[in-house]
Amino acid sequence: MKQKQPDSPIPCPGADELAVVPGYRAAGLSAGIKKDGRKDLALVTSDPPARAAGLFTRNRVQAAPVLVDRERIRSGLCGALLVNSGNANACTGEAGLRDAFAVSRDLARALGMAEQHILLASTGVIGVRLPVSCIRKALPRLVAGLRSQGLDDAAEAIRTTDRFAKRLWRQASIRGRTVTLFGMAKGAGMICPNLATMLAFFLTDLNAPVPALRKMLRAGAEESFNRINVDGDASTNDTVLLLANGRAGNEPARPGTVFYGTFYEDLLLPMMRELSRMIVRDGEGATKAVEIRVQGARSVRDARTLAYKLANSSLVKTSFYGEDINWGRFMAALGCAGPVVRPDLVDISYDSVQVVRRGVLAGKSREARARQVLRKDGFSVTVDLHLGNGSYWVVTSDLTHDYVSLNASYRS
Amino acid sequence: MKQKQPDSPIPCPGADELAVVPGYRAAGLSAGIKKDGRKDLALVTSDPPARAAGLFTRNRVQAAPVLVDRERIRSGLCGALLVNSGNANACTGEAGLRDAFAVSRDLARALGMAEQHILLASTGVIGVRLPVSCIRKALPRLVAGLRSQGLDDAAEAIRTTDRFAKRLWRQASIRGRTVTLFGMAKGAGMICPNLATMLAFFLTDLNAPVPALRKMLRAGAEESFNRINVDGDASTNDTVLLLANGRAGNEPARPGTVFYGTFYEDLLLPMMRELSRMIVRDGEGATKAVEIRVQGARSVRDARTLAYKLANSSLVKTSFYGEDINWGRFMAALGCAGPVVRPDLVDISYDSVQVVRRGVLAGKSREARARQVLRKDGFSVTVDLHLGNGSYWVVTSDLTHDYVSLNASYRS
Repeated sequence: MKQKQPDSPIPCPGADELAVVPGYRAAGLSAGIKKDGRKDLALVTSDPPARAAGLFTRNRVQAAPVLVDRERIRSGLCGALLVNSGNANACTGEAGLRDAFAVSRDLARALGMAEQHILLASTGVIGVRLPVSCIRKALPRLVAGLRSQGLDDAAEAIRTTDRFAKRLWRQASIRGRTVTLFGMAKGAGMICPNLATMLAFFLTDLNAPVPALRKMLRAGAEESFNRINVDGDASTNDTVLLLANGRAGNEPARPGTVFYGTFYEDLLLPMMRELSRMIVRDGEGATKAVEIRVQGARSVRDARTLAYKLANSSLVKTSFYGEDINWGRFMAALGCAGPVVRPDLVDISYDSVQVVRRGVLAGKSREARARQVLRKDGFSVTVDLHLGNGSYWVVTSDLTHDYVSLNASYRS
Repeated sequence: MKQKQPDSPIPCPGADELAVVPGYRAAGLSAGIKKDGRKDLALVTSDPPARAAGLFTRNRVQAAPVLVDRERIRSGLCGALLVNSGNANACTGEAGLRDAFAVSRDLARALGMAEQHILLASTGVIGVRLPVSCIRKALPRLVAGLRSQGLDDAAEAIRTTDRFAKRLWRQASIRGRTVTLFGMAKGAGMICPNLATMLAFFLTDLNAPVPALRKMLRAGAEESFNRINVDGDASTNDTVLLLANGRAGNEPARPGTVFYGTFYEDLLLPMMRELSRMIVRDGEGATKAVEIRVQGARSVRDARTLAYKLANSSLVKTSFYGEDINWGRFMAALGCAGPVVRPDLVDISYDSVQVVRRGVLAGKSREARARQVLRKDGFSVTVDLHLGNGSYWVVTSDLTHDYVSLNASYRS
C-alpha cells in the first residue's frame, strides 16, 4: 500500500494567533502563590477526556503531585490537568498529599468530573506547604476562564525562573486528516545537578490507544528530555504528560500504522527535541546550548558516562561561557570519568574545526577558528576516543554569572 | 615505658619571621612563564637528600612532571624539587616529557646532583608547551638565590589563581628532639569537578624510613586532601610530596614508635587538614568552607556517595553562597544520588540547628536560627538518614560569581 506523504507541519502561530487544539480548553492566572503577581496557576481540560501517558521523576524523593499522578494515570484517562508554579509541594510529607487531594477534590467538583481523571503538577520552592487556600479561592475564576484559546496563558502560568514561555504548536495532514499537537514546557536550571523541575505537557487530538501513547512518549523522551537530564539526575517533580483526545477521528494510531509513525516522527519527536533544547537554552542564566558528542568509545555506556562527565563539568561549562578554547579541561575531565581513555588517541572538534589531534593541539590556527565557533549560541563539541564504536550525545548549557545569581537568591 | 608528652606545636612564624627547616634551602622568582610578572618558579633543595614519599593524581591523563616523578620517587630519595606555575605541561605529549627532562637535566648540572633525585611539579594552563627557554634562563638565578629563609618565596611562586599563599610551619619537641615541619600548597578550584591542580609539599627534618613516610602520607591524605577531592576527581597534575632529611637526628620514626605517632598526630595530620581547608576556603571564588557530614547511611560507601553528591551540587553550593536555607535542594540531591534514602526519615542540621526532622521542616523558627549559621564562613551540615551506621564527611565550598569569572576567563 502506497502511503500518502504528510504535508509539512504548519509553523507555530505567532504572537497574534493563538494556539488551539480541538477539544482542549485552558486558562492561566495569578492565584497569589508567587509573591510578585505573575501567573502561577494553569488548568487544561479535554472534552472528551483524553487518553494519557506519563513519565515521572526517578528521584527517590517525589513530590505529592507526582505520587498522585503515578497512581491516577494507570486508568489511562485524563479530563483535566492542574499545574501550579511557585511551590513544588515536595518534601511536605503527608500534609502535602492531603493538600494535593484537597485541591483536586475542589476542582473535580467545579468541573463535575471524577477526581481520578484529574492530574496535578507543581513546580517551585521545595519544603514549603502548598498555599491551598489561594488555589481554592482561584479555582472558580480559573474554571470560568477556560477557553480554547487559553493554552498560551497556561504556558505562561507554569514558568518559574524561565525567561520565556516555552510552547510550540504544529499541525500535519496525515492521510487527509488534520492532526494538531501543542506542547508546553518549563525548565530553567536543567543544568548539573539538574534539580530544577522539568515539566512538559503535550496535547493532541490524535486518536491513539494508551499503550501507543506510552510507547511514543518513552521513545521520544529518550531522544530529547533524557539527553538534557545531565548525570541522570531528576528533580522531585519532573513530569512529562501526553494527552490525546481522539478528536481528529483518525483510525487508532497503533505502532506500525501510518498515523503512529507520522505523528511520532513529524510532530511529537521534533517538538520534544525542540522544547528540550529551548529548556537548555533557557537553563538558568545560560547563554548557549552545546551538544556534546562522544564517539569511538569502547561501549555506548562508556560514551554516555564521558558525555555526561563533560556536560556536568563546571570548568567545561564556564569555558563555554568565556568562549575560551580550553580543551585541556576536556582532557582532564575525560581522564577522571572512569572509562578507559587513551590520551594519545583523543581527537576534539568544535563543530567541524578539529582542535586536538591524538591528544595534543592540532595547530595554533585551529584555535582561532574554533574561537569563532564558540561565539555562537549553539554548537557541538565532538570527542573521538578511537577505541571502539560506542557513541552518545547530550545537550548542555554554559555556566554563567546569572546562574549563580538566580540560584543564590532563589528563595529570597 | 612512660612516654614524654610532646610540647604543644609552635605556631607559624608571622610576616616578620621566616619559616626555616634544618637542611632545606629554597628560592622563588619570576621566570616569565606567567605574563604578569608574578613569581612562577620555585626550587627547594635538601642537604642531605631527603627520603621522599609521594601521592599523585589518579587521572588517566597525567602531566609530564607526574610521569617523571612517579618513576623517580621509587628510589625514595629527593635532593631537589622544582615547581613552576603558569603552565601545567599536561596534554603536551612526548614533547612535554622531553621538555621536563631538559629542564631537570639543566638543574641537575647546576646543582651537581643526580638527575634521578630531582622531582618536578607544574601547574597552570593545560595543553600548551612548557616555556623551556624561560625556565633554563632563570635556573642560574634561582640556584644562586637558594637560602634557608627562602621557603616563603617558594610558597609564593607555586600560586596560580590562589588568592593567598598557603604555607604552615610547626615545631614540636619529641623526646627532647625538636622536629620541624613546613607545608605549602596550592589549590584554588578544588571544587566540582575539581580539575584545578592541587600541589602540596611537606618538608621536615624528621629521620624516618621511606615506608614510614609513605604510610603516614597516605593515611594523612585520606583524612584531608582526599576529603576535598570531590567526586574522586583529580587534575592532570595533582601531587603531594613528603620529604624528610633526618637532620633532627631522632631514632628512625617507624610505625609504632613515639616519633612516628607524635609527628603524624601532632604535626603532619593537623597540617594536612589545615592546608586542605585553606584550599577549600580559597577555592576559586569561594567565600565559605562547609563540612558535609552524612550519617546513618546503610554503609560507608553509601554515605560517601551521598556526601559527594551534596558537595558537588551546584544548587547546594549556590545556596551556601546565597546564605539561603534551601534544604529542599538537599532532599532532591539525596533522592537522585543512587543509594537508598527514605525521605520520611531524613534529618538535616546546620551546625547544631536542626532544620529538617523526618523529611519535613522542623519549625519555622529553626530556619531563622539556621540562617545565622549560614552567615558564617565555616560551618557544617549534617544529614542523618536513620538507615544504618555508615558515615562520611567531606569539605566543600560555595559556588560564587567569582568562580564563574575566574574560570570563564582563565586563559585570556
